[in-house]
Amino acid sequence: MKSINAQETCATATKLVLPNDTNTLHNLFGGQLMAWMDEIASISAARHCRRVVVTAAVNSISFNHPIKLGDFVTLEAKVSRSFTSSMEVIVDVFVEHQVTGAQKKANQAIFLFVAIDQLGRPIEIPKLLPKTDEGKERYDAALRRKQLSLILAGRMKPADATELKALFE
Amino acid sequence: MKSINAQETCATATKLVLPNDTNTLHNLFGGQLMAWMDEIASISAARHCRRVVVTAAVNSISFNHPIKLGDFVTLEAKVSRSFTSSMEVIVDVFVEHQVTGAQKKANQAIFLFVAIDQLGRPIEIPKLLPKTDEGKERYDAALRRKQLSLILAGRMKPADATELKALFE
Amino acid sequence: MKSINAQETCATATKLVLPNDTNTLHNLFGGQLMAWMDEIASISAARHCRRVVVTAAVNSISFNHPIKLGDFVTLEAKVSRSFTSSMEVIVDVFVEHQVTGAQKKANQAIFLFVAIDQLGRPIEIPKLLPKTDEGKERYDAALRRKQLSLILAGRMKPADATELKALFE
Amino acid sequence: MKSINAQETCATATKLVLPNDTNTLHNLFGGQLMAWMDEIASISAARHCRRVVVTAAVNSISFNHPIKLGDFVTLEAKVSRSFTSSMEVIVDVFVEHQVTGAQKKANQAIFLFVAIDQLGRPIEIPKLLPKTDEGKERYDAALRRKQLSLILAGRMKPADATELKALFE
Amino acid sequence: MKSINAQETCATATKLVLPNDTNTLHNLFGGQLMAWMDEIASISAARHCRRVVVTAAVNSISFNHPIKLGDFVTLEAKVSRSFTSSMEVIVDVFVEHQVTGAQKKANQAIFLFVAIDQLGRPIEIPKLLPKTDEGKERYDAALRRKQLSLILAGRMKPADATELKALFE
Amino acid sequence: MKSINAQETCATATKLVLPNDTNTLHNLFGGQLMAWMDEIASISAARHCRRVVVTAAVNSISFNHPIKLGDFVTLEAKVSRSFTSSMEVIVDVFVEHQVTGAQKKANQAIFLFVAIDQLGRPIEIPKLLPKTDEGKERYDAALRRKQLSLILAGRMKPADATELKALFE
Repeated sequence: MKSINAQETCATATKLVLPNDTNTLHNLFGGQLMAWMDEIASISAARHCRRVVVTAAVNSISFNHPIKLGDFVTLEAKVSRSFTSSMEVIVDVFVEHQVTGAQKKANQAIFLFVAIDQLGRPIEIPKLLPKTDEGKERYDAALRRKQLSLILAGRMKPADATELKALFE
Repeated sequence: MKSINAQETCATATKLVLPNDTNTLHNLFGGQLMAWMDEIASISAARHCRRVVVTAAVNSISFNHPIKLGDFVTLEAKVSRSFTSSMEVIVDVFVEHQVTGAQKKANQAIFLFVAIDQLGRPIEIPKLLPKTDEGKERYDAALRRKQLSLILAGRMKPADATELKALFE
Repeated sequence: MKSINAQETCATATKLVLPNDTNTLHNLFGGQLMAWMDEIASISAARHCRRVVVTAAVNSISFNHPIKLGDFVTLEAKVSRSFTSSMEVIVDVFVEHQVTGAQKKANQAIFLFVAIDQLGRPIEIPKLLPKTDEGKERYDAALRRKQLSLILAGRMKPADATELKALFE
Repeated sequence: MKSINAQETCATATKLVLPNDTNTLHNLFGGQLMAWMDEIASISAARHCRRVVVTAAVNSISFNHPIKLGDFVTLEAKVSRSFTSSMEVIVDVFVEHQVTGAQKKANQAIFLFVAIDQLGRPIEIPKLLPKTDEGKERYDAALRRKQLSLILAGRMKPADATELKALFE
Repeated sequence: MKSINAQETCATATKLVLPNDTNTLHNLFGGQLMAWMDEIASISAARHCRRVVVTAAVNSISFNHPIKLGDFVTLEAKVSRSFTSSMEVIVDVFVEHQVTGAQKKANQAIFLFVAIDQLGRPIEIPKLLPKTDEGKERYDAALRRKQLSLILAGRMKPADATELKALFE
Repeated sequence: MKSINAQETCATATKLVLPNDTNTLHNLFGGQLMAWMDEIASISAARHCRRVVVTAAVNSISFNHPIKLGDFVTLEAKVSRSFTSSMEVIVDVFVEHQVTGAQKKANQAIFLFVAIDQLGRPIEIPKLLPKTDEGKERYDAALRRKQLSLILAGRMKPADATELKALFE
C-alpha cells in the first residue's frame, strides 16, 4: 500500500455567507460552519484512502473571529496523519472581506475519520507522508492528540502516552 | 449575581431523521448533527446567563453509533461549569428506534460559549452549582479540559495546570 | 394489547428562531412552525403505537402571538386519545424570550395520525389512558372533535353525534 | 371599499416532489406540504386585501392520498369569505403522476388570515363576492366554520350560532 | 405520435420571496431563482412528452429587474419547440408588489431538456404545435437558437445554418 | 485603474453530492448545480472588481454528464473578460468519483455580472489581462458572445458585429 502525499488530500471550498447561513447577530451561524467543515473534511479523508469514510470524532474547533453576512469564507482541509484505519484531518478557515479583499484566519478544526468497508468495519489505509515544515509539525502533534483522546476516553494509561507525558515534565 | 442550578440550563430537542438530513450511506450526516448540537447548546448557555452567547470552541465530539434514516434523535444540553465569561456545555445525544423504541447513547459533544455585550465584549456571568454526582464529576472535568485547551493553545504552562498534571504522575 | 399512559407519548423540542425560519416581518414563518409541529407530533404518535404513522388530518391550529427572530420555541406533543387505528395528538407551543426568559403559550395544534402496516393499511393500536385532569378533559374533547370531523366530511349524521349534539341543546 | 371577486384572489403553484421534500416512506413530508400551503394561502389573502397578512388559524387540513417522490403537486388557493379584518382561504391540492399525467385531488386545507397595519393591529378589508356555485357554497360554509371556531374557543354561545345549530335539528 | 398543443405544456408557480431566498442585498438570490426556473421548466417539458426529462442546457437567462424580499414571483414555463428528443422551454418571470399589486416582467430563461428512457438514452417525443402569434415567433426563433448552439459547440458548420445565416446578410 | 490578472479572479469550491441535492433519478438536481454555479461565479466577479456585483445574465450552461449522489463536484470560476461595467465569468465543473478518484469535466457555464454602486447604478471596473492560451481564447470568444447577446436582444445590428459576422462568411 503506497504512501500518500499530504498535498494530494487537500480539498478546498470558497463560500459566500447568505442570510440563510446567519444567526440572530447576522454572523455566520456556528452550526452551519461546522456542517461545511465536516463536508470538506470528509472529502479530504476520502481522497486519502479512496474508501467510504465516516466522521469518528471532532477533536477541537476554535472560533476566533465572527464571520459576517456577505463575507467570503474559504475552507482548506488536509489529512495531517493517518493511523491504522483512521485519519486526522485539519480544516483551516479563512475569511475575506467582499469589497476590501482583506483576508484573515478565522477558525481551525481537527476531525477524525474512519475508513469502512461495505459492512461498516474499519479497514487498513495508506500511510501519510508529510512534506512541508507545517505538515511535519501537524503530523507530530496528531500523535499527541490521539494519545490524549485515548486517555480521556479511558482507553490508554497516562503513563504509556510517552509523547504527551513529556509535555508535563 | 446569584448562582444557577445546572438543571435550569437544560435544553432538549427530539428530532426525526428525514432524507434531507442524511449522507450517502442513508445515515444522519455528521455536519447536520453538529448544527443541531450547536443550536441546542447555545440555548442552554443562554438560559444560564440570559445574555447573547456565541460559540467559542468545540472541545470534542464523539460519534459512536451511526444514526439511521427514520430514527428519533434526542439531544440534551446542560451547562457543566461556568468561568468568568464563558460556559462549558455538554450535549448528550440519544437515538431511539422508531418501531422498537430501543434507546442508546450515540454521541457526546463538549462546547464552549462566551456571553457578550452589545459591543461584542465578554461579560461576567453567574456561577454554576452542580447538584447531582454526574454534574459534580463533569464540573471537575471541565476545569481539566479548560487547562488542557489553554496549554494546547500555548496560553498556559503545563507546570501550572495542577489538575491536569496530576493525571500524569 | 396493553394501554398506554399519555405521558409515555410525550415528545418535546426546543428551537432557536434563525433568519432562515422567518417571514418578511422577521417573525417565525407560519409554514415553518407547521412543519416543526408535524414532525414532533408524528414522533408522539409513533411512541404511542410503535408503528409507522402518517398524518391524516389537522383539526385546528391557532396562532395567538407572533414569535420573533431569536426567540426560543418549545413544542410539546402528546397523544390525547386513540381510536381504532388513529390517534389525536395535541401540540402546545411556548415561546421564551432569549434574554428575559419570559415564557408564554403562543400556539396550539391538533393533529390526527393513522398507524399503517407495510402495505399502507390502517392497523389496530393500543388504547390511551389519560391520567391528569387536563389529560381527561382533552380525552373527552377528542371524541367531540372526531364526531365533528365525521359530520363535516358527510360521514356521520348530526343526530348520531350525541356528545356534540348536547352542546347545542 | 369595493368588493373583490373570488377569482382575483386565486394563487397557484405547481411543484415537483424532490428527495429533499420526502419523509421516511419516500412520500411528501406532511410538514413540507403544510409549509407550501401556508405560503400560497398567504399570497391569496394578500391579493384580496393588498395589505400585510398573518396566519391566524388553520381550521382543517385533510390528507387523503399519499403524494410520492417525483409527483407534480398543484396548489390552488382562493379566498372563500372575508370578515371584518380576516379572510378564510381554501387551498385545494392536486397530484399529477409525472409519466401518466393522471390527476387527482389529494388534500384540502382551510386557513384564516388577518390583515394588519404597521403596528400589527387588525384593519378593515374589502368584502368578497362569490360568483360560482362552488364559491357560494364555500362562502356559506365559511360562516358555519367561523361560528364553530368561536364556540370551540368559548367566545360564542352555541345557542347564538344559528347557522350551525340548524345542522343538529 | 400525436402533436401537443403548447398550452398543454404550461406550468406555473407563484412564490413569496422569504429571507431564506435572499442575497446580501435583500433581493432574491440569482441562484435560487435559477433553481426555481429549472424545476418549473422540467415540469413543462415532462408534460409535453410524459417521459423522464433531464436538463441538457440553458441557452440564456436575463435578469432585468431585481426582485425584493416580500415580492410575489410568478414563473410561467411553456415548451416553445420540440426536436427529435429534446424540447426548448421558455420561462417568463413576473414580479408583483405585495401591497400595490403592480406587476412587471423581471426575467426570461430558455432551457433545453432531453427525454430519456430507463437506460438514460434519448427517445423520440411528440411534435409541438404553436397556436398563438407569440408561440409561432418563439417556435421559429427556437430553430435559430438550436443552430447557434450547434455552431458554438463546433457540431454544425456556419454555412449550413441557413436560418441563422440570413441574419447576417 | 490597474488591470487584473485572470488568475486573481479564480474562485473554486469542492462539494459532496448529498441526498438533499438530488433529483428523482438520484443525480444532482440541475437547479441546485445552477445555484452553486451562481454563488461561485459571483465570488469570482467580486474578486475582479472588489465591488458589489449582481447577476445580469447567463449566456449558456451545458449539462454533459449526469452527476451522481456521493460524487465530489469541483467548480472553478474565472473572469474571462471585463467590459465597461460588466464581467463575463466562466465556470468549469469537474466531477470526481469518491472511490476511484476518476475525474471528468461535467459542465460549463457562462455568466455575466455587473458591478454596481450603493444606488444600484453600474460603475466602471478594471480591465482583465488574460495570460494563458486558454485565457486568451476565452477572452476573444467573450466579445463574440457579447455581440451575439446584443443582436438577440435587438440592441445591435448584425452588420456591426464584425467579430461574429466573420463566422458566417
